[in-house]
Amino acid sequence: MLIQSGIDFNIPFAILDPDANAPCASLAEFHTGKLTDFDTVMQFGSACDIITIEIENVNTAALKELVRRGKKVFPQPEVIELIQDKRAQKQFYRNHGIPTADFILTANAEEVKANKHFIPAVNKLGREGYDGRGVQILRTEADLSKAFDAPGLLEKLIDFEKEISVIVARNEKGEIKTFPVVEMVFHPVQNLVEYLFAPAQIPEAVAKKAEAIASGLITQLNMVGLLAVEMFMTKTGEVLVNEVAPRPHNSGHQTIEANITSQYEQHLRAILNLPLGDTTQIMPSAMVNLLGEPGFSGLAQYQGFDEVMQVPGVHVHLYGKKLTKPFRKMGHVTIVDHDLGSLRKKADLVKHTLKVIA
Amino acid sequence: MLIQSGIDFNIPFAILDPDANAPCASLAEFHTGKLTDFDTVMQFGSACDIITIEIENVNTAALKELVRRGKKVFPQPEVIELIQDKRAQKQFYRNHGIPTADFILTANAEEVKANKHFIPAVNKLGREGYDGRGVQILRTEADLSKAFDAPGLLEKLIDFEKEISVIVARNEKGEIKTFPVVEMVFHPVQNLVEYLFAPAQIPEAVAKKAEAIASGLITQLNMVGLLAVEMFMTKTGEVLVNEVAPRPHNSGHQTIEANITSQYEQHLRAILNLPLGDTTQIMPSAMVNLLGEPGFSGLAQYQGFDEVMQVPGVHVHLYGKKLTKPFRKMGHVTIVDHDLGSLRKKADLVKHTLKVIA
Repeated sequence: MLIQSGIDFNIPFAILDPDANAPCASLAEFHTGKLTDFDTVMQFGSACDIITIEIENVNTAALKELVRRGKKVFPQPEVIELIQDKRAQKQFYRNHGIPTADFILTANAEEVKANKHFIPAVNKLGREGYDGRGVQILRTEADLSKAFDAPGLLEKLIDFEKEISVIVARNEKGEIKTFPVVEMVFHPVQNLVEYLFAPAQIPEAVAKKAEAIASGLITQLNMVGLLAVEMFMTKTGEVLVNEVAPRPHNSGHQTIEANITSQYEQHLRAILNLPLGDTTQIMPSAMVNLLGEPGFSGLAQYQGFDEVMQVPGVHVHLYGKKLTKPFRKMGHVTIVDHDLGSLRKKADLVKHTLKVIA
Repeated sequence: MLIQSGIDFNIPFAILDPDANAPCASLAEFHTGKLTDFDTVMQFGSACDIITIEIENVNTAALKELVRRGKKVFPQPEVIELIQDKRAQKQFYRNHGIPTADFILTANAEEVKANKHFIPAVNKLGREGYDGRGVQILRTEADLSKAFDAPGLLEKLIDFEKEISVIVARNEKGEIKTFPVVEMVFHPVQNLVEYLFAPAQIPEAVAKKAEAIASGLITQLNMVGLLAVEMFMTKTGEVLVNEVAPRPHNSGHQTIEANITSQYEQHLRAILNLPLGDTTQIMPSAMVNLLGEPGFSGLAQYQGFDEVMQVPGVHVHLYGKKLTKPFRKMGHVTIVDHDLGSLRKKADLVKHTLKVIA
């Protein structure tokens, strides 16, 4: 989707991806290689003018060396490093007065178990968590047996009203723009975004608070690029930062159709130091992730495609992945509709009609 | 732009283009070759499932043979053939009761000169006219010396109020959808679209008439795909068909941002026999063609890019062409704005700020 957007600006892309069958392989100069390998990243990056990422799990030592050699790397390697480590991330929030759920750091399972006074809590691995992995809820003492036996943290379980997200962009000149707040409904088991609604149905004051937190955070990080800030809105209208991602994000997919500027174009504008685009939302929208149907693995087939294509305002985005497996992200669908009731009905219809099977 | 849209549906594209440096060469399987050569088109088409075109000047004998061998070719070769020949096109309108300017066929310059009673008229070459070439206005007897000396036609010069266009799509099931009427302002010399405004500021009854003509025409052609129908609105509110193009068209570029479904997605839906998309316009829009600045030839550079990127609602589309020359189509810019006055001001600003130089 970044390439689709960059085509409009004549941007020649080169991609480094560990998967030789990556969907973008046919859309750009393509290199297969490990993102976590120093030499691979150095060799790839040396031929680029500007380097950006779409996943945080990348060799930051190589990125830092590329910066030393005069390359532009956005988001900056230091920001990626901070975000790679959920423990460092949380401490950053605490040190910079950014509202977030109370937490304690834990070195291993023993330390988690020793803090049973802290539950109900969320137990998170410090590193390598992604798309719901490395995160679990410890509700009762019995759950303590599941505790991660590696450096991580225990975070107070927030009895939130809604999960919301703000995507904020910042360019080298320091210009900052936020997208309107969206609300997300997560899959109860897989911890993946299942539905998204934009704009979020929340009080104006809460939206302003969330946008201010996102703008403040990107400023304090001194970051260039796009930052997705996932937050809890508590039942008392408090806003707490949950996690962040320094890149285009699932909570911004709907901007392609629903906003004047998409998150992808905004990311490009930010890292190219262009003026940031207008983030105004044009129409209410919903987004449904298209996940591999449980029980199916193999060559992907799309059931119900024609049916959903008949529904006005439905935009299907398939990601071109050849193989499906349960809960793999195979695409997403954005729905735009001026009527909120109709929007919700269409989102449900898409959710229950379009299936990725094999 | 067709590829950009097709990425969302996992469509693997193969492209045949005579220019090895065609902008899409890095976005798809790419073949360099002459579109007018029978063997080249046969060989290329034999490896495809569905074949479509973006320019009419293609070997239709090969396309017909591909159809005989079971390939889907949309628009159908017979439609392309009809449209390749402006004489046949005009006769088709006459035979099918489609309103169009009165005309006479001419075999050579002598015949044009012999019909001086018909001027003021437009003298058109029967074949190979494109983007303003092969069309000239004969206003006075003196102009007759310029008459084309090849099969063509003389068409009554219409003292029109506006030039308008309707893009209509039809799939194999016969489903038909029109995009809202747009109005175009042509460059006085180059005969290229200079500004476009959508929707057209015309009476509702005229818009309905124009849409009905476009729907009727695609039905009578029995065509599958996208048809751009350019029309004159006369001072008395009559609507006359001027020319048509059986493909995504300059008068539909603004649909990428301004409509629920873009003309590119609609073309794909039509030729894949999917349900046609909702054509509703979301916001008023304008489109400015980005033409090579007179006086500059060579490696393209874009003056004023940062300035126009600052304007809310401005979407720049560069076509990735390496070399510019005077009046070459190097891109387009779409502007969306709820306020028509502001829309027009922004279109002017873009027109006078963004320049392709070398």
